[in-house]
Amino acid sequence: MMMDDVRSGDERWVAEAIDLAWGGLGSVEPNPMVGCVIVRDGRAIGRGFHERYGEAHAEVNALADCQRRGESPCGATAYVTLEPCCHHGKTPPCADALIAAEISRVVVAVVDPFDQVDGGGVERLRAAGISVSTGVQADAATKQLAAYLKRVRTGRPWVIAKWAMSMDGRIATSSGESQWITGGASRAGVHELRGRVEGIAVGMGTVIADDPMLTARGGGPRTPARIVFARSRVPEVSSRLVQTASETPVWLVAGPELSDGALARLADHEVDIIRVDSHDAAGMVDEALRRFGSSDNPSGRPMTNLMVEGGGELLGSFAAGDLIDECHVYIGAKVIGGREAPGPVGDPGFRRLHDASAFAIEDVTRFEDDVRVIYWKRSC
Amino acid sequence: MMMDDVRSGDERWVAEAIDLAWGGLGSVEPNPMVGCVIVRDGRAIGRGFHERYGEAHAEVNALADCQRRGESPCGATAYVTLEPCCHHGKTPPCADALIAAEISRVVVAVVDPFDQVDGGGVERLRAAGISVSTGVQADAATKQLAAYLKRVRTGRPWVIAKWAMSMDGRIATSSGESQWITGGASRAGVHELRGRVEGIAVGMGTVIADDPMLTARGGGPRTPARIVFARSRVPEVSSRLVQTASETPVWLVAGPELSDGALARLADHEVDIIRVDSHDAAGMVDEALRRFGSSDNPSGRPMTNLMVEGGGELLGSFAAGDLIDECHVYIGAKVIGGREAPGPVGDPGFRRLHDASAFAIEDVTRFEDDVRVIYWKRSC
Repeated sequence: MMMDDVRSGDERWVAEAIDLAWGGLGSVEPNPMVGCVIVRDGRAIGRGFHERYGEAHAEVNALADCQRRGESPCGATAYVTLEPCCHHGKTPPCADALIAAEISRVVVAVVDPFDQVDGGGVERLRAAGISVSTGVQADAATKQLAAYLKRVRTGRPWVIAKWAMSMDGRIATSSGESQWITGGASRAGVHELRGRVEGIAVGMGTVIADDPMLTARGGGPRTPARIVFARSRVPEVSSRLVQTASETPVWLVAGPELSDGALARLADHEVDIIRVDSHDAAGMVDEALRRFGSSDNPSGRPMTNLMVEGGGELLGSFAAGDLIDECHVYIGAKVIGGREAPGPVGDPGFRRLHDASAFAIEDVTRFEDDVRVIYWKRSC
Repeated sequence: MMMDDVRSGDERWVAEAIDLAWGGLGSVEPNPMVGCVIVRDGRAIGRGFHERYGEAHAEVNALADCQRRGESPCGATAYVTLEPCCHHGKTPPCADALIAAEISRVVVAVVDPFDQVDGGGVERLRAAGISVSTGVQADAATKQLAAYLKRVRTGRPWVIAKWAMSMDGRIATSSGESQWITGGASRAGVHELRGRVEGIAVGMGTVIADDPMLTARGGGPRTPARIVFARSRVPEVSSRLVQTASETPVWLVAGPELSDGALARLADHEVDIIRVDSHDAAGMVDEALRRFGSSDNPSGRPMTNLMVEGGGELLGSFAAGDLIDECHVYIGAKVIGGREAPGPVGDPGFRRLHDASAFAIEDVTRFEDDVRVIYWKRSC
């Protein structure tokens, strides 16, 4: 990235734009979160962020804020977390809006790798005689945009694994009892996460054992699709997921072993079927991630954030493929013990420690006597 | 506890005495850590703590500090974390020293349940016309003295379990690889703990798998006895523990199945044998804890702090008996996976979550990408 012509104050204003951008988390996907601050003579005259998918982008909202305050953006500097777009999507190009507003300088954190932009926004601004600096607060903005950037670059969603375990790493007793290892305050954190992702995946073992709803208590900006990976069994029609599929989407990732009849019965209850060809778990996960990251899935839109809640078998497949980008580990203050009590991540596992997926801590938070550690994959 | 006649400033001075007392951690056991501050006219004129087993107690050290500074304790108040002793042990009674110094008031956090004291110190002071307040900062002092109080009340040491596991609760891969799940900074924390306890216990599985030394790298105030629980197998004479037993104590807790011949061979290498009668793991642990907590063990002194490092079988026995008072859980930033990869706490485990041992968090600390959570048993 170019760090041409960075001026004093640039870092601070981009940092403020990054803070603003968080306001779109859970509402803007598959678009990126973006924030914008418009500054003249060392004073912010307009602020905006991309608030909701399909609605105005950050730059347009910031320009509207200038107008509302009776400030002219003419000659001002616009600080944005991501390169202004140059294509007609759901809204007209932001680069054009900045040019029309007679902004004289644009400071950009991250250039958008999305192939309809990819430097084109910067080019268009420069062609209009606007001075452009890029790469300011690039690390912080890249981190904020990690899920979006991954999807654009790889065609797959950002995968957030979540599990709750005891102090000794068990998700249930040897008799299968699992409710509750962590307390109410922890579970509120889980529901918050559920309310901002586009999909929540579980395996059939979890559906059978827990008959879960997988909804976000208290709501959130988004209602995620509830996704079941089904290789050889499908949920009962009487299960809570199937019974509520007409209200809240349920997607079934169905392996080739499943009969058309069994799937048709679920489709009658408005379960969306995603047929995959792979017989093995790793292949199913791989096919499903490609479908989720493209528009070729029941939502018709690429998915940016996928949460994987378990069980051990599904998490085992994700872990083995090194497919977990972010991991929320809740540790409850109990010791369960017992060789047969299950752990959170099943087969196949890594036989060599050297091969095990390595993570870095993003955050450690206490919820009463539970601890939540948020990890990101190393090299993310 | 009585909270008679508490005056302003009392809390603060006792808190300072508690801070001082920590200086004895790892050096004074089986005695309690005790701190003392002597105050006249709102000014500390002497400070002391019990520094080392067999040497002067806190009160005597604080009176000596007065003398060193040329201050007279006559008419002053002594703040102590634990009731002054009234018996002749390794040193003369502290109550007598305070009386002789013409201290006019004594403020005590915790009354000593040790049966040669147990209120006798307070009585003796009052009989000498000294005003005594007790129960000031009692919660904080009780916590500091938890291990001592447990030993005095139950005749058993305070048990500190320690394990290191991956994000998914595994202590090794399915092929048995376990070095290293946590990083160097975490391991330094383990060595610090090893250097202040009186005993470190492991099971035979750990001896066979890891051939450990169980010494504190970098040293510490104490060199703990290295204790092996052996039911049906004994360490090889060539093991590092046996080979170093003449330099650093090794105790073998030997079940009835072991032949006298096998044990005699180890005794030749200066391994101390503790014969127990129980055939089962729970019974062995119970007998051993009683021996450790009394003088009837190879050290000839009651043990206050026992660390249990594993493996899963031994920790399983301690957990099942609800015998873990404090637990240091290290979580390394790796996902290992695999149903056969072992967890830290083995059989029998709790089948009902309701029966699982419940803990409360004492401390959460990051060591680079590891997290250490210190728990205390609930109700401690």
